[in-house]
Amino acid sequence: MQVVVLAGGVGASRFLAGLVSLIRPEQITAVVNVGDDFEQLGLQISPDLDTVLYTLGGLVHPDQGWGRADESSNALSAAAALGGPDWFFLGDKDIGLHLVRTNRLGAGERLSSITADFARRLGIGIRLLPSTDDPVTTMLETLGGTFDFQTYFVRRRHTDEVDAVRYEGAAEALPAEGVLDALATADLAIIAPSNPFLSIGPILAVPGIADALAERRGPTAAVTPIIGGRAVKGPADRLLRRFYGEASPVTVAEHYRDLITHMLIDSADQDELARLKAHGIRAQAVDTLMSDSAARARVARAVLELAER
Amino acid sequence: MQVVVLAGGVGASRFLAGLVSLIRPEQITAVVNVGDDFEQLGLQISPDLDTVLYTLGGLVHPDQGWGRADESSNALSAAAALGGPDWFFLGDKDIGLHLVRTNRLGAGERLSSITADFARRLGIGIRLLPSTDDPVTTMLETLGGTFDFQTYFVRRRHTDEVDAVRYEGAAEALPAEGVLDALATADLAIIAPSNPFLSIGPILAVPGIADALAERRGPTAAVTPIIGGRAVKGPADRLLRRFYGEASPVTVAEHYRDLITHMLIDSADQDELARLKAHGIRAQAVDTLMSDSAARARVARAVLELAER
Repeated sequence: MQVVVLAGGVGASRFLAGLVSLIRPEQITAVVNVGDDFEQLGLQISPDLDTVLYTLGGLVHPDQGWGRADESSNALSAAAALGGPDWFFLGDKDIGLHLVRTNRLGAGERLSSITADFARRLGIGIRLLPSTDDPVTTMLETLGGTFDFQTYFVRRRHTDEVDAVRYEGAAEALPAEGVLDALATADLAIIAPSNPFLSIGPILAVPGIADALAERRGPTAAVTPIIGGRAVKGPADRLLRRFYGEASPVTVAEHYRDLITHMLIDSADQDELARLKAHGIRAQAVDTLMSDSAARARVARAVLELAER
Repeated sequence: MQVVVLAGGVGASRFLAGLVSLIRPEQITAVVNVGDDFEQLGLQISPDLDTVLYTLGGLVHPDQGWGRADESSNALSAAAALGGPDWFFLGDKDIGLHLVRTNRLGAGERLSSITADFARRLGIGIRLLPSTDDPVTTMLETLGGTFDFQTYFVRRRHTDEVDAVRYEGAAEALPAEGVLDALATADLAIIAPSNPFLSIGPILAVPGIADALAERRGPTAAVTPIIGGRAVKGPADRLLRRFYGEASPVTVAEHYRDLITHMLIDSADQDELARLKAHGIRAQAVDTLMSDSAARARVARAVLELAER
């Protein structure tokens, strides 16, 4: 069996960790968002790819869910003392990775090739693909101005009400090598519990990817990022209310209409099962909070079992 | 009184620290070697400028004489684990400075402008100038191949016998703004106790600088980098023997012929005073080893007094 997972950052990485504990890593392909990639201090930073790398490589800060454990921030402090920006936290070990990536990108190597090499060096057996090797930047239009993802999310602490989300560069981007093939041939496709607009949206905006998902013969299952009307992390709930009037598994399913056949929702939302059924979605409710490795395995197992129905 | 100092790395920085303890920093201009500037992990590194910045900014590793005190090397270790080079040590705080400089150079700012800003931020009152804003690379020709300075010095531990030294790019380089003016107008010019070939050579190779020194009306004093036939640090003694048959204050003076009027030599070499006099050099012998701040002040004071003779 082959499984392909569309993935954002923390939630997706925890889900992938659960999946890796159930099936062989060689059975898993992750297609990861690059819409929040950005540059600081000249470093090319790919936060979602790095969160997957650090989580599956056993290096992640366990509570935080992103960044590395046992980090120091001496480089960032020294840079700030010399006038450099420090609103986006960069640990020293993390900077080591960014330096290698930035240097190799500068030498003309593709992001997908560098990512594959990093995964191999960190002993990660799954196939880890950026959605595209081309630049895609998630832009948020707000009354306060139009911001790239990190400016909106980190610098302005995602407090601006979002009027529109655009994926700059997506129309001209090509899916990275292997992405469309994985989507077409996988026995199961999974949309991880990531922000539908800010993590999954930029993946689906790359021409060919949404079509490949829509044309699949096998099941495609989404794991809800919403529990009881709230996002586990970040502004997914606010964006769903803004664009669909309600933050619930049903509006997530509406957002993914024509793309998914199955949906795993949280026990807190089991009243929604009937509405999802009316939308033609086969759904199941379990405890979806992935607080520890047992919970991650439980959620991943629930998706695998649900997709067999 | 205005003093201009041609400076390499550790020895020059310690000498400048002595000078700063005697006269006001506004009276001092340092013209610093950039011939060993290089790139690692995409970072633009200026070792001699940084050694001066760290020494006068009170941040330098006291025993080592270069790099910063209380350094960690988490970024470099993480980079090495991902296949990055680590033969040139880069501490985390040091990387913070390189990130800011590299980023600003990439945005089109000149090295001299960035250096002046760093000096201001670190509370360094002297005027700190790179010899040039243009790329100059010291190249060493050896039987084992032709190497840039850092490859020869750090990676190959300066064990190759050097057949020739070239300053790549120097012929097309322009002195940084203020360099020629400082050399023409300073009451005293000093060549710091740095390697004549590898630290001072790349400065003098920039068209206009050696001429400005030769045409000075006031005194120009060199501080010997040789004590009792040996370099305090590095391969200056071997290079002097290779190119002049002997490592002594006299061959240093021969190398600087037409450029210097005075020379401070070490007490260990006081027998050389007569030979220097025969060469028309006014010399004096003192203990030139700058092991602590008192010694640095003593050496700097000896130069100031010598130049008044």
